[in-house]
Amino acid sequence: MSTSLKATPRERLLRAAADLFYREGITATGVERLCRAAGVSKRSMYQLFETKDELVTESLALAGTDALTDYFPGEATGMAPREQIMYVFERLEAMAGDPAFRGCPFVGTATELKDPAHPAALVARAHKQELTDFFARQAALGGADDPETLADQLTVVFDGLAARAVVRGTGVGKLAVTTASVVLEAGGLRAG
Amino acid sequence: MSTSLKATPRERLLRAAADLFYREGITATGVERLCRAAGVSKRSMYQLFETKDELVTESLALAGTDALTDYFPGEATGMAPREQIMYVFERLEAMAGDPAFRGCPFVGTATELKDPAHPAALVARAHKQELTDFFARQAALGGADDPETLADQLTVVFDGLAARAVVRGTGVGKLAVTTASVVLEAGGLRAG
Repeated sequence: MSTSLKATPRERLLRAAADLFYREGITATGVERLCRAAGVSKRSMYQLFETKDELVTESLALAGTDALTDYFPGEATGMAPREQIMYVFERLEAMAGDPAFRGCPFVGTATELKDPAHPAALVARAHKQELTDFFARQAALGGADDPETLADQLTVVFDGLAARAVVRGTGVGKLAVTTASVVLEAGGLRAG
Repeated sequence: MSTSLKATPRERLLRAAADLFYREGITATGVERLCRAAGVSKRSMYQLFETKDELVTESLALAGTDALTDYFPGEATGMAPREQIMYVFERLEAMAGDPAFRGCPFVGTATELKDPAHPAALVARAHKQELTDFFARQAALGGADDPETLADQLTVVFDGLAARAVVRGTGVGKLAVTTASVVLEAGGLRAG
């Protein structure tokens, strides 16, 4: 999320917003602070975004796509379905161990905004669904008994681990991989 | 969390704070709004609590104890250890289906505050640990292979389910009971 010198004011605002909202909170980040971080005047900001809510929503949509990329194995890795799923939890183990980790940005946004109908909450929901859809595809490829349920359970484990890291202020260690394995095993995706 | 007419200004402030922070957010709830809801002057508030942070911390400590009571089966219920654990997830299924559900208050507070060293984050961590300790005690009584790990996994499932309800803006349905069952089964606490 580094800000290129060539980035437009719009891009700089979106990046600074995603970064500050994640690190310091949405309500806690005032427009002044945001504009200073982005190097954009308040006047320019309000020409680009009608409201702060619009910026909250668009910055999550943008940063969310990046966040998901951090967890998914790349295309054509040749990994078996079970390995593809375990890769996500190995990534979570690594990321949750970073002192800068503040949990899943989608869960964090929905949690702070409270209103399930807020446009940013809808973005959070859609992005979270991409993770569940990834699990469901791999579960189906791996011959799971009920890919949809297994994908829901894996999403629950993922979010619970991220919440644990936030509440404890520490990483999740091997609990990520062991808990995901239990759920995979029960769902019919056994270790090879 | 009804406010008795006999409640002291201190009690009214703590109750109003816990309620508003949970429903609308910590940063989003200004001191003016809080004092109005509690029927206490700002001057009185600052005589009782030096800072808003102190109120955040103490209100979570108080409301947290109530919140846990909502999930635990009462003493001397005669329920078997596995049933005691499943009771928590049945309660979560019921509570997450309420449109007013905004997730676990401990995870919510830690998520919004960001700083793992904030006094309220420490309260959140201690209260969440009470849930894990309950799971560990019951897991040990039920003859789990590794009660501590099982308790950690059950906490992960609990928090993941609560996060799901927040992100989706809907209940969690049978996923609560089915996911907890999978983890219990694998941990050596089989259904009778």
